[in-house]
Amino acid sequence: MTGLRLLMAGGLLVLLASFITMQNKKVVFFGDSITQAAVNPGGYIVKISELAANDNLAGQFDFIGAGIGGNKIYDLYLRIEEDVLSRNPQIVIVYVGVNDVWHKRTSGTGTDLDKFEKFYTAVIKKLKDKNCKVALCTPAAIGERTDFSNELDGDLNNYAKVIRNLAKNNNLPLIDLRKAFLDYNLRENKENKESGILTTDRVHLNEKGNQLVADEMWKVIKSL
Amino acid sequence: MTGLRLLMAGGLLVLLASFITMQNKKVVFFGDSITQAAVNPGGYIVKISELAANDNLAGQFDFIGAGIGGNKIYDLYLRIEEDVLSRNPQIVIVYVGVNDVWHKRTSGTGTDLDKFEKFYTAVIKKLKDKNCKVALCTPAAIGERTDFSNELDGDLNNYAKVIRNLAKNNNLPLIDLRKAFLDYNLRENKENKESGILTTDRVHLNEKGNQLVADEMWKVIKSL
Amino acid sequence: MTGLRLLMAGGLLVLLASFITMQNKKVVFFGDSITQAAVNPGGYIVKISELAANDNLAGQFDFIGAGIGGNKIYDLYLRIEEDVLSRNPQIVIVYVGVNDVWHKRTSGTGTDLDKFEKFYTAVIKKLKDKNCKVALCTPAAIGERTDFSNELDGDLNNYAKVIRNLAKNNNLPLIDLRKAFLDYNLRENKENKESGILTTDRVHLNEKGNQLVADEMWKVIKSL
Amino acid sequence: MTGLRLLMAGGLLVLLASFITMQNKKVVFFGDSITQAAVNPGGYIVKISELAANDNLAGQFDFIGAGIGGNKIYDLYLRIEEDVLSRNPQIVIVYVGVNDVWHKRTSGTGTDLDKFEKFYTAVIKKLKDKNCKVALCTPAAIGERTDFSNELDGDLNNYAKVIRNLAKNNNLPLIDLRKAFLDYNLRENKENKESGILTTDRVHLNEKGNQLVADEMWKVIKSL
Repeated sequence: MTGLRLLMAGGLLVLLASFITMQNKKVVFFGDSITQAAVNPGGYIVKISELAANDNLAGQFDFIGAGIGGNKIYDLYLRIEEDVLSRNPQIVIVYVGVNDVWHKRTSGTGTDLDKFEKFYTAVIKKLKDKNCKVALCTPAAIGERTDFSNELDGDLNNYAKVIRNLAKNNNLPLIDLRKAFLDYNLRENKENKESGILTTDRVHLNEKGNQLVADEMWKVIKSL
Repeated sequence: MTGLRLLMAGGLLVLLASFITMQNKKVVFFGDSITQAAVNPGGYIVKISELAANDNLAGQFDFIGAGIGGNKIYDLYLRIEEDVLSRNPQIVIVYVGVNDVWHKRTSGTGTDLDKFEKFYTAVIKKLKDKNCKVALCTPAAIGERTDFSNELDGDLNNYAKVIRNLAKNNNLPLIDLRKAFLDYNLRENKENKESGILTTDRVHLNEKGNQLVADEMWKVIKSL
Repeated sequence: MTGLRLLMAGGLLVLLASFITMQNKKVVFFGDSITQAAVNPGGYIVKISELAANDNLAGQFDFIGAGIGGNKIYDLYLRIEEDVLSRNPQIVIVYVGVNDVWHKRTSGTGTDLDKFEKFYTAVIKKLKDKNCKVALCTPAAIGERTDFSNELDGDLNNYAKVIRNLAKNNNLPLIDLRKAFLDYNLRENKENKESGILTTDRVHLNEKGNQLVADEMWKVIKSL
Repeated sequence: MTGLRLLMAGGLLVLLASFITMQNKKVVFFGDSITQAAVNPGGYIVKISELAANDNLAGQFDFIGAGIGGNKIYDLYLRIEEDVLSRNPQIVIVYVGVNDVWHKRTSGTGTDLDKFEKFYTAVIKKLKDKNCKVALCTPAAIGERTDFSNELDGDLNNYAKVIRNLAKNNNLPLIDLRKAFLDYNLRENKENKESGILTTDRVHLNEKGNQLVADEMWKVIKSL
């Protein structure tokens, strides 16, 4: 092979390589109504693309919402093939748990803690088997009071602990939204209000809640 | 080919055919604590093998229990690969639904009706995709009173209706245990007792309950 | 005393007596949101006054609503002095039970069956101690399906049975709305609808529901 | 009146006064299963009489248990005449709230927070109308973990807050068992166990729990 040919071949490789690196990383946000709303203007997924743009990384990511209202961990498991794996994402952010706790009270159809862990483990396994990078979020809040008098705080703390352990035991990055929300409320919610600081209704995110979630997630996503 | 050779080849074919038909059909019973107990002496699976023996069909079936206490429809879905499909059964009897209703009251962790249908549909699909013959059972009882004053009768009737529709829409045989139990109690439970007729504790089967379930199931299994 | 004076005195007595008998009987309807709405146009209490007028008995009754939304049997007990006894009614119609069952599912705050009976017994005792004539109503419906597949049918039937027994054991007239509603729906609700026949929303009365309740109650009230 | 007579009259008054002061103060403990068990050996009421004896005040008090298993605030209201007021106590310790929260989860029959406050207010009024001195206890625990991950911590904290406010607004001494238990567990429950520190089963008192309750109550009782 002549020098020229070598040069051309080398050039092709560079082109190919840059083409490959130019392919965006797909990030799927896998969750419930909070994530379903996150693709709307002001939603946390939209805000994450803004953060990516600010960091001049916009061209490197595709951000895809896969949230469905009312979903619990076993609902994620049921639709993981169709809604996540079929998209071949590089990164999946799992953000679930509020309904698993909340529905115990509202409709008698929450998720037992041991089954929550079992299905969550199965979800992680499916994602790892497809070589997805996975980050886990704790559920942020059902009520924003800071003195642990939100009705479901005890139970929600328990489910958050399970997720923290799953992250640790599976060596996965943790996005500890529950801690982030509590810290923020301890600073900003001096009147011990139930909602209106980071949520509109104790659960769903307002402007500041979406920003906080976006900030916490983006820190992790860009490090992956 | 000479006549002798033809004869020999024919004999081989007969042998082969009889060998094939001599392979037992695997029947997996897929369910909750009621099915978990059914492999014990006096249990309905044991009684079904007795019925098969009476019909001189003992050699044609392997009866395999795959029941786990506390299971709801989504638990079946989670373990269907490992506990059912991996065994390559020819026939699968799905018998679930009590906990989906009952746990609403006892622990706030029942299954919403629409999700019950969704997961049940997914279970049927997995079984059909593997060419299993499938029969569906309605949940027999949570309480044996005949005047519809068992606390959860309304809800349980609703879940039974979903299963009846799934059987119909999927062209699957239905083993309507709920109807069979009610009919039996209308005849035999003149004092309108809550338990003790076919169940020990409103839910789990006594001797007669196991026999009734075995009779109803065997009729369907041998027809498949 | 002369004959004339005697005559005049006698006339006065007659006048007085007729004045006394002309005092209206106070009828208090003691219940929950269904009764709270019953004083509105088209409500069952309004319809009962129309029925009384049709029977030329309008002048003999005062119909008083004492219903408060969300009330269970123990709420009635708490406010019986202030809202019922303080009015010195001759007749009290107790119509409660839906929330005692319903709130188990919606908020985890229903009433245990044994406590329902205990508080109901205490309510009856308070009314009897004040010499009120008392009639008891069974809760009509939480869902109008006729095949006992309304979610809470079993439980509601149980509470209705307790009320029937209380009426029997205390020799009180029973207004069996649950039976009346079921009979009506068996005739008129051929499509097995959940609501829209006698209720607007499975529980609260539409025009026909108010009429049926009024008819059933008026039969009893005018006989007291 | 002569000096002698005056002297005699004075002596009588002194006798009478000492007779009056020698009458024991009746203290009724009004509550649920925790109080029902408190009259048994090692129970907190037995321990309080020991504390009284240690302080040489044994002769001044009669300690009477009026606890019934499963009681919620409205059950106390129902039986207050018969079980408390009829005994003409000088002091009543109200200790309730666990079942109002707990039964939401176990049987769907807890007490709504607003109704809890309403019935509690009615209980206080009945006691004050009879000139009883009243002290209020917060419910100690449903689970002893110190990181607010006991399932019902949030709800229980809320009910405790209502009781603290009722004490404050009614100028009644507060026996803040919930705070005492949490403080004790923060010191002694380093492993964040769910039970076994002050309770046997997350709710009912072990030896140390009974002692802590007795200590906290006795401080208040002897000051009344």
